[in-house]
Amino acid sequence: MSDSPAPNRNTLWARTLVEELDAAGVEAVCIAPGSRSTPLTVAFAEHPEIRVFSHLDERSAAFFALGRAKRTGKPTPLVCTSGTAAANFHPAVIEASQSRVPMLVLTADRPPELRDSGANQTIDQQKLYGDSVRWYADLPEPEPEGRKLRSLRTTAARALSESTGTPPGPVHLNVPFRKPLEPVEVPGDVPESLADEAPLGAAGRTESDGSRRPFVRTAQGRPELAESEMEAVREAVESADRGLLVAGPADAPSPEREALADFAAATGFPILADPLSGHRFGHAGETPVLGGYDGYLESVGESWPDPDLVVRFGASPTSKVLRRYLEASDARQFLVDPAGGWREATFTATDLLAADPTRFARRIASGLDSSGSEGSGSDESGGESPETASWRERFAAAEEDYWRVVESAREERLFEGGVLSAVAEDAPDPATVMVSNSMPVRDLDRFGRPRAADLTVLGNRGASGIDGITSTGLGAGSATDDPLVLVTGDLAYYHDMNGLLAVARCGVDATVVEINNDGGGIFHMLPIEEFDPPFTEQFRTPHGLDYEPTGDLYGLDFERVADLESFRSAFEASVESAGTQVIEVATDAERSHRFREEVGDRVAERLE
Amino acid sequence: MSDSPAPNRNTLWARTLVEELDAAGVEAVCIAPGSRSTPLTVAFAEHPEIRVFSHLDERSAAFFALGRAKRTGKPTPLVCTSGTAAANFHPAVIEASQSRVPMLVLTADRPPELRDSGANQTIDQQKLYGDSVRWYADLPEPEPEGRKLRSLRTTAARALSESTGTPPGPVHLNVPFRKPLEPVEVPGDVPESLADEAPLGAAGRTESDGSRRPFVRTAQGRPELAESEMEAVREAVESADRGLLVAGPADAPSPEREALADFAAATGFPILADPLSGHRFGHAGETPVLGGYDGYLESVGESWPDPDLVVRFGASPTSKVLRRYLEASDARQFLVDPAGGWREATFTATDLLAADPTRFARRIASGLDSSGSEGSGSDESGGESPETASWRERFAAAEEDYWRVVESAREERLFEGGVLSAVAEDAPDPATVMVSNSMPVRDLDRFGRPRAADLTVLGNRGASGIDGITSTGLGAGSATDDPLVLVTGDLAYYHDMNGLLAVARCGVDATVVEINNDGGGIFHMLPIEEFDPPFTEQFRTPHGLDYEPTGDLYGLDFERVADLESFRSAFEASVESAGTQVIEVATDAERSHRFREEVGDRVAERLE
Repeated sequence: MSDSPAPNRNTLWARTLVEELDAAGVEAVCIAPGSRSTPLTVAFAEHPEIRVFSHLDERSAAFFALGRAKRTGKPTPLVCTSGTAAANFHPAVIEASQSRVPMLVLTADRPPELRDSGANQTIDQQKLYGDSVRWYADLPEPEPEGRKLRSLRTTAARALSESTGTPPGPVHLNVPFRKPLEPVEVPGDVPESLADEAPLGAAGRTESDGSRRPFVRTAQGRPELAESEMEAVREAVESADRGLLVAGPADAPSPEREALADFAAATGFPILADPLSGHRFGHAGETPVLGGYDGYLESVGESWPDPDLVVRFGASPTSKVLRRYLEASDARQFLVDPAGGWREATFTATDLLAADPTRFARRIASGLDSSGSEGSGSDESGGESPETASWRERFAAAEEDYWRVVESAREERLFEGGVLSAVAEDAPDPATVMVSNSMPVRDLDRFGRPRAADLTVLGNRGASGIDGITSTGLGAGSATDDPLVLVTGDLAYYHDMNGLLAVARCGVDATVVEINNDGGGIFHMLPIEEFDPPFTEQFRTPHGLDYEPTGDLYGLDFERVADLESFRSAFEASVESAGTQVIEVATDAERSHRFREEVGDRVAERLE
Repeated sequence: MSDSPAPNRNTLWARTLVEELDAAGVEAVCIAPGSRSTPLTVAFAEHPEIRVFSHLDERSAAFFALGRAKRTGKPTPLVCTSGTAAANFHPAVIEASQSRVPMLVLTADRPPELRDSGANQTIDQQKLYGDSVRWYADLPEPEPEGRKLRSLRTTAARALSESTGTPPGPVHLNVPFRKPLEPVEVPGDVPESLADEAPLGAAGRTESDGSRRPFVRTAQGRPELAESEMEAVREAVESADRGLLVAGPADAPSPEREALADFAAATGFPILADPLSGHRFGHAGETPVLGGYDGYLESVGESWPDPDLVVRFGASPTSKVLRRYLEASDARQFLVDPAGGWREATFTATDLLAADPTRFARRIASGLDSSGSEGSGSDESGGESPETASWRERFAAAEEDYWRVVESAREERLFEGGVLSAVAEDAPDPATVMVSNSMPVRDLDRFGRPRAADLTVLGNRGASGIDGITSTGLGAGSATDDPLVLVTGDLAYYHDMNGLLAVARCGVDATVVEINNDGGGIFHMLPIEEFDPPFTEQFRTPHGLDYEPTGDLYGLDFERVADLESFRSAFEASVESAGTQVIEVATDAERSHRFREEVGDRVAERLE
């Protein structure tokens, strides 16, 4: 931040806003170039502590910011000019809202008198994202006035607080500016007396050592149940013999890994861990993490007893098999959600607990440890009944069988599931792994074996779009030094091809696994496959694109592999090297689907 | 449309909707693949009369539909699945709203009980586009019931009517479907008795020859002034000596060319024709069409008398020089707008006339012809005063001088204005010419000399984004057999690169002129140029992309030219040949901008 006096009110205004964002912990910003946003862009660019990621396509910029926030838990503000630029943020804003990712959108706007006046590049930006934002504010016109500047500083703190609240999500500040937009000297525009007359508004707050502190420090409480409510839950847990802990999608493990492991240890209940839950990977071996359920639950449904209690965390699981399994049981089902969201579309849950998941899990675990009849805090399976032990072992045995089938099947022929199986096994520890909708996340769900490796697996499952997969991955990759693995399909690769520009412009290295089945392979899983036409032309939509030129266009190494072995060696080489490599695996969607079904049949046979 | 009975209610519902759209004149549809939209996709695909354009990126799909509608005046419906797909339409929806282009968005949705339930790919699609649509309706759940089917047929008619009303614009129908989405037989779902019990709902209406007719035929009146109001305008026109007719942007000439020519003939007033007005090109030589004003009005402002009357049509002119010129005069300024829009952001207009421009122009012209003192209907300049004649000749002389300067300057060195000058001169007759924001449209404004050739020049000046230029152009090109010329910049080319897929998938041939100045050349026109950093990194944003690989990627011929002569021969070869050619003209934005200013200086000298 420049120490020189602001040459005009717009510079002052934008610097003040940026100063507060920095004070509140913002470390980076995504900026798409434009004229109206000049004061913001200049203020961010001249700030020494804030890293600027410059993007040319606002849609990709917003998904990049989304990815960074998924990985860091903190918003990376977005800046754009007036007009449809702001509308290009909309898909990512919706994804952020639905998947509860902090985001701060700063849209520059024309001054109020030019709205709906026919002025150029002027649209109605007010409440542009409707109900998809946690908070919206139309900032007042910049003015070097004490109360206004204090309101601006407060607004910055509030915007960040709202975006990281419960649940986190997008916040939209619409920021009008009147010319001059550049930091040109406008004599008298910012009175020299401002610092004396309105010291708080002009300078904000500093610590005693001179460093900046936020104008308003915010502390956000998180919902906790009363002890009597907890006791009721504990009783239900204790009286259950066949409990299941279901960890649905959540960008950061929720509950935290240790807390969920304690819960599992205290109850003896296995954990059904969605690939996006943060629990499929990263748990120590003794924690009963299950990952194959999508492949075998359908086969065992009849022959096994039903669960009698389910505790669900996170969003609705990716696995339709699991959702149906839960729907079919008449177990008591607790949904634990800090935001009190009713994210359970089978409508069979019996209890909604609006409570912080980590604290909830810890309180259950510690309460059971101290109150359990066995009474030993060091007894990891707490007050576990023999039936619970056999229930857990039943799952453990099914997993063993299942993974044996999968690992043998993937050697037989190249199919999409085998690629995800290999990615899960071979991804470096630690790594960030971004998986696309629609098939990669499903294949990782079914074929990604749990590992202790610290993999942060991310996906856009809020709205399950394929519109910003590459950018989300690269944004997540930009946030840490962990190697980045991006697994995408050919349609998602095409949809967000512009996002590849971030490889060079934002300096992100990645291993991009592009599974190319020339169109929408997922449609082979749907009944429309039987109706051709229009199946091929309107659903599978083969495009015939040869993506090799995208290597030249974006400065990537592009390699094609035709079998699993070459894939694995290309993958290994890539994750160990600098730069970005695209490894294209050409698959046949139909054959992959058939083989996926065949593996399912083998599993069923084996389990019978 | 299949004649077989609908196998289930979704098929019935979608067929009914498509049947009515066809009956009301819809000829094509843009579909992005997805599952939830299956009933609509199947119904459109099986309809024998409707052409399906299949797109993979919804953002490009929507701009393609926008372009078609710009060229045809009729909406090309858009179909997408549930989720963020719909949000990707948003930029084009805003552009359609602001530039008054008919559009019909059909978003498939989950059934109501799954909204906000955590169900996959389910977002809040209700009123997703806010105030940017002329009409929004959330369709009821499909049901084979007479009244519901009549409501659906009526809704189809109404949606088209609203989208082509005054002003035209986007309409959004949100269409929920519950599984099964495919045309699978569901016994009893559509009762066999439906045709007997609800014949009107089930079958709609047919003409006596058996052909379909719309369920509701709509006729839309357009606003006309009362004769007394017209008389008052005529009096003002007759008493003016130095009138100007300003034709601002409008996709189809508004008023129609003949009507405006009559108006000019009857008054003797020259026409300042925006390149996007439909009047810069296509008028016969005797009509006083001016196109160089952006280049010379600044130079003559002081030495010429002011206009005393201005009649403005269309949106606000592209030329800032013209807007300032009008703002500085104290002429009486009539805004003629059929929708009563107040599209005049200098706030100096004195009269708003909400009237159909063509009828208004005709009534002025014929009223003057018959009431003028000279009294001869064949006297093309009506009751023109000597001062009016000299006023018009003053402009004509300035034009002559101006174009001489331009045409000599463009031979001296390659600059961006020279390219647009050549495009305007060399474009085939007829042709569709799409010009991008931000510099191409400004350069065409300044350097595109009026011609009698029937050029339909289009631009996205509603919100002036660069996000969908290629798709808009290709959509416009798909609507007629006219050769398509697309003039774009390197940033717009990058932003909508996905749109190039339509060349192959939608079978559109084009001549793409890509002016590559490696970034945002327009920023050289703004004061931010003086501040570097951050000028280069955050505003001009050179990307260094080599676009040659896009030729291989999308099956285009890619050619680079380095001087005007090679450009002109490449351009000529391209417009005469099949396939799509990208002609890249590498320019230096700064030098182009300096030379643009130098040409301005020469004009000023000459006019003094």
